[in-house]
Amino acid sequence: MRVFGIDCGTEFTGYGVVEMDKDARMPKLLHRAAGTIRLSKKEKTPQRLAQVYAELVALMTLHEPTVVAIEEVFFSANAKSALKLGQVRGVAMLAAATCGLEVAEYAPLSVKSSVVGYGLAAKEQVQFMVTRLLGLEVAPESADAADALAVAICHLHTAQTFTMQGAR
Amino acid sequence: MRVFGIDCGTEFTGYGVVEMDKDARMPKLLHRAAGTIRLSKKEKTPQRLAQVYAELVALMTLHEPTVVAIEEVFFSANAKSALKLGQVRGVAMLAAATCGLEVAEYAPLSVKSSVVGYGLAAKEQVQFMVTRLLGLEVAPESADAADALAVAICHLHTAQTFTMQGAR
Repeated sequence: MRVFGIDCGTEFTGYGVVEMDKDARMPKLLHRAAGTIRLSKKEKTPQRLAQVYAELVALMTLHEPTVVAIEEVFFSANAKSALKLGQVRGVAMLAAATCGLEVAEYAPLSVKSSVVGYGLAAKEQVQFMVTRLLGLEVAPESADAADALAVAICHLHTAQTFTMQGAR
Repeated sequence: MRVFGIDCGTEFTGYGVVEMDKDARMPKLLHRAAGTIRLSKKEKTPQRLAQVYAELVALMTLHEPTVVAIEEVFFSANAKSALKLGQVRGVAMLAAATCGLEVAEYAPLSVKSSVVGYGLAAKEQVQFMVTRLLGLEVAPESADAADALAVAICHLHTAQTFTMQGAR
């Protein structure tokens, strides 16, 4: 299973592709790709949304994931920023639908618990553990890319549990 | 000028196409189309967003508007509903960008002032005035379609003012 994780933001949207190596004696996480889609503040909103959509569709087509994983939004933000974030999120989910991929959503608490083992972990702890779990030599290029890898790992851990339960 | 107005909603998204007849002795508003995109509650969010996107792109291609007009969101809603509304709004703006159309945004107060002459007008007053201004025999099929026609009319009134100012 290959998971395409997305961390939506109005300025930076992170993505990360992680795979579970089933052939290894111990299930092993494999890092496939990660990066950040940076939006120009000079562009108008429809053009910015068109850029996120086009890049996500291109990346999903390139990496051929099995599923898309996305973080549910943490509602400490006000309604105005929630609306703006929602616009990017809508376009990200549309990109998945366009590529015929299912979307799994995870609460921030679940993502952090899954990666750090602690739901209220700091952003730096998430980056550190993602780097370690994937055996990377350097940390992901941005906090957004790390968060996207984290939600992909969260999905693989969850799916792994399901498979093990199903095999009993 | 032909305007494609959109009133986004998580369940119902209204659209309305209005044109300004420049050939008439007095500038006259012409109703071209209006309707409601109804989303199934049974579908998952990415599929619902894909439906809104596909229908809007098809309608814009069919009606060949000059511009898209959309209402800015009234922030009485909480962050959770603002996020959900933002998802639909993002996809609507993407549809406009896909069709190569500019998007003009108007505050609810401007839309109501433009149609009813009073910024805090009730939904029924908007429906009544839209029906009258466009010379329709029956009211638009839904409050969402009426709101979409209202934002299209608002854009035409604004554009009309600009043209008249420019002609001085």
